[in-house]
Amino acid sequence: MIADMAQVRPVILSGGSGTRLWPLSSNDRPKQFLALTGEHTMLQLTVERFFKKPGFLPPIIISNARHRVEIERQMRDIGLDGMSLMLEPQPRNTAAAIALAAFRAQPDDILLIMPSDHVIADIEGFRLAIETALPAAERGFLVTFGITPDAAETGYGYIRKGEMLFPGMYRAGQFVEKPDGQTAQLYVTSGEYSWNAGIFLFRVGAFLKALASHAPDIFDACREAVDRGTSEGECFYPDEAAFCRSSSVSVDYAIMEKADHVAVMPVDIGWSDIGSWDALHAYLGGDEKGNVLDEKAVAMGVRNCLIQSDGPIVAAVGVENLIIIATADAVLVMPRGESQRVKEVLEEVRRKGR
Amino acid sequence: MIADMAQVRPVILSGGSGTRLWPLSSNDRPKQFLALTGEHTMLQLTVERFFKKPGFLPPIIISNARHRVEIERQMRDIGLDGMSLMLEPQPRNTAAAIALAAFRAQPDDILLIMPSDHVIADIEGFRLAIETALPAAERGFLVTFGITPDAAETGYGYIRKGEMLFPGMYRAGQFVEKPDGQTAQLYVTSGEYSWNAGIFLFRVGAFLKALASHAPDIFDACREAVDRGTSEGECFYPDEAAFCRSSSVSVDYAIMEKADHVAVMPVDIGWSDIGSWDALHAYLGGDEKGNVLDEKAVAMGVRNCLIQSDGPIVAAVGVENLIIIATADAVLVMPRGESQRVKEVLEEVRRKGR
Repeated sequence: MIADMAQVRPVILSGGSGTRLWPLSSNDRPKQFLALTGEHTMLQLTVERFFKKPGFLPPIIISNARHRVEIERQMRDIGLDGMSLMLEPQPRNTAAAIALAAFRAQPDDILLIMPSDHVIADIEGFRLAIETALPAAERGFLVTFGITPDAAETGYGYIRKGEMLFPGMYRAGQFVEKPDGQTAQLYVTSGEYSWNAGIFLFRVGAFLKALASHAPDIFDACREAVDRGTSEGECFYPDEAAFCRSSSVSVDYAIMEKADHVAVMPVDIGWSDIGSWDALHAYLGGDEKGNVLDEKAVAMGVRNCLIQSDGPIVAAVGVENLIIIATADAVLVMPRGESQRVKEVLEEVRRKGR
Repeated sequence: MIADMAQVRPVILSGGSGTRLWPLSSNDRPKQFLALTGEHTMLQLTVERFFKKPGFLPPIIISNARHRVEIERQMRDIGLDGMSLMLEPQPRNTAAAIALAAFRAQPDDILLIMPSDHVIADIEGFRLAIETALPAAERGFLVTFGITPDAAETGYGYIRKGEMLFPGMYRAGQFVEKPDGQTAQLYVTSGEYSWNAGIFLFRVGAFLKALASHAPDIFDACREAVDRGTSEGECFYPDEAAFCRSSSVSVDYAIMEKADHVAVMPVDIGWSDIGSWDALHAYLGGDEKGNVLDEKAVAMGVRNCLIQSDGPIVAAVGVENLIIIATADAVLVMPRGESQRVKEVLEEVRRKGR
């Protein structure tokens, strides 16, 4: 990235509360706070991705206020400082979260929106894509980095490529949320669709203009929340009453599916949202026996298993193709390939009143 | 049992420290302290078996001193009192443990020795067997209740029947410890052998005479340990220095295999030592799907599994023929039929330094 180019401010969305990786993840300990792929948590990996790299400004992390201590602890653990934290009093989904960052920035700032709970193996490829997309963002396009799909996933949103705007970048066509399996297969084979990974690059002014036009209540609520907010060291607290008036919708639904000047740049950067235990097994690959084991696992005659624990020793003997996840409070045992059922399992656990 | 017959004093051996039911059992929490078959622990069930029943005196429990609090708690929980506790400073196996009880009793007392970690489904059948065996015990026989075998188990000791002494009672022939599978099968089909369950009935004088003859060091050490011991409420502490001079051998090895006047009475009383997770599954039988689940289990599409937990919820989905045992510290997952490997698993866990 050449020196006189605009600097990019990463904005890291850490408000998620998924439970697809139960029992390791929970509403109190969402996925971004877990070290699933190595020593560092997904939030730490996301912050480190462009931290103090040429062309990048220090990031803003947007999170629920109750996770402040955990985030500060995780940043301290990896020796990073200079974060800005924007702490939401209540979750209001991604449109409002991004709006908070936009109102704290200057109109010509370039923001790079990244979820905190995705992994990207090819960081240099991602950096090159950002560099390539910068001119479009500076010209007012809301750029989404679409992931080139490698399977007919039904859990993702898909974006169709429209006309080519620049080499490698297209006007965004139709957005389709969670198609059925047959449709997803058609999308993948057509080569016309990318997964929507929620990674965006835009100029603040362009975003706020689209927000005012397509989601004025979010615009008003978040502008007032920032105007009336309070700073405390590196933390910024939006005004609670104002912020809670905002609609709670995704930025895709509020803006990207509706605005003009939305562009999609398909990328192939080793992305995964580690959206299930099977996805983690696939991402990490497995040893010569096909196992993904953490240090708590004691495996004897075990093949093609995923074993993860945040506390108890897990001794597995003579089993194959199982997912075994253990915490001091709950243990999950299921065959590989079934991990989309975790939500259903968790509902059953809760239904039984435990 | 008719009123003028000798009363029987149960002596319950609670010194065991097995780990075959790891991770629920451990040296700190051996099997007899676990509630494996219902609400009550195996020790509680053993004490309750003849508690305040006609013909039976209050029991003596012999245990390691460090388990005193746990035993007192378990007795209080089921509202039992009047126990005598004999608390060993160090474990010295069953010959010495039984000797302690014998030296505390009168020469003509009849003792019923029972391990604390076996289940007996047919208590009335057991009581009838005791009643039948009493005359032989009174005449000086050391009676062992042999379990009629229903499988070629290689983990047990076998006792061959000798000449018939009374209807249903035989002089004990050869004792064979843990035969190989082929030999065990021959024993079972011959009808000549019973399992040695460590359940004995004898007059104190007869036992001590045999002890003096075949294990004089145990006799001397335990007599002195009782002579110099101290009482504290319901508890009796043998003298440590004296007791620790005793050999540490089983009563089978020290006496039963060597003494004259050893009799075996084969019984079929729904006995199990719950010596493995598979044995627990077999004993409890399973529901209409073949599952044995405890209250911590949440099972969806699960068949023929054993799931036990002393803490964590265990959610199992779509698995079959598995043993899943969970504590806050360790989780075991293995196929049914493999639970003899628990010891090997535990060694591997320890080898890895956890």
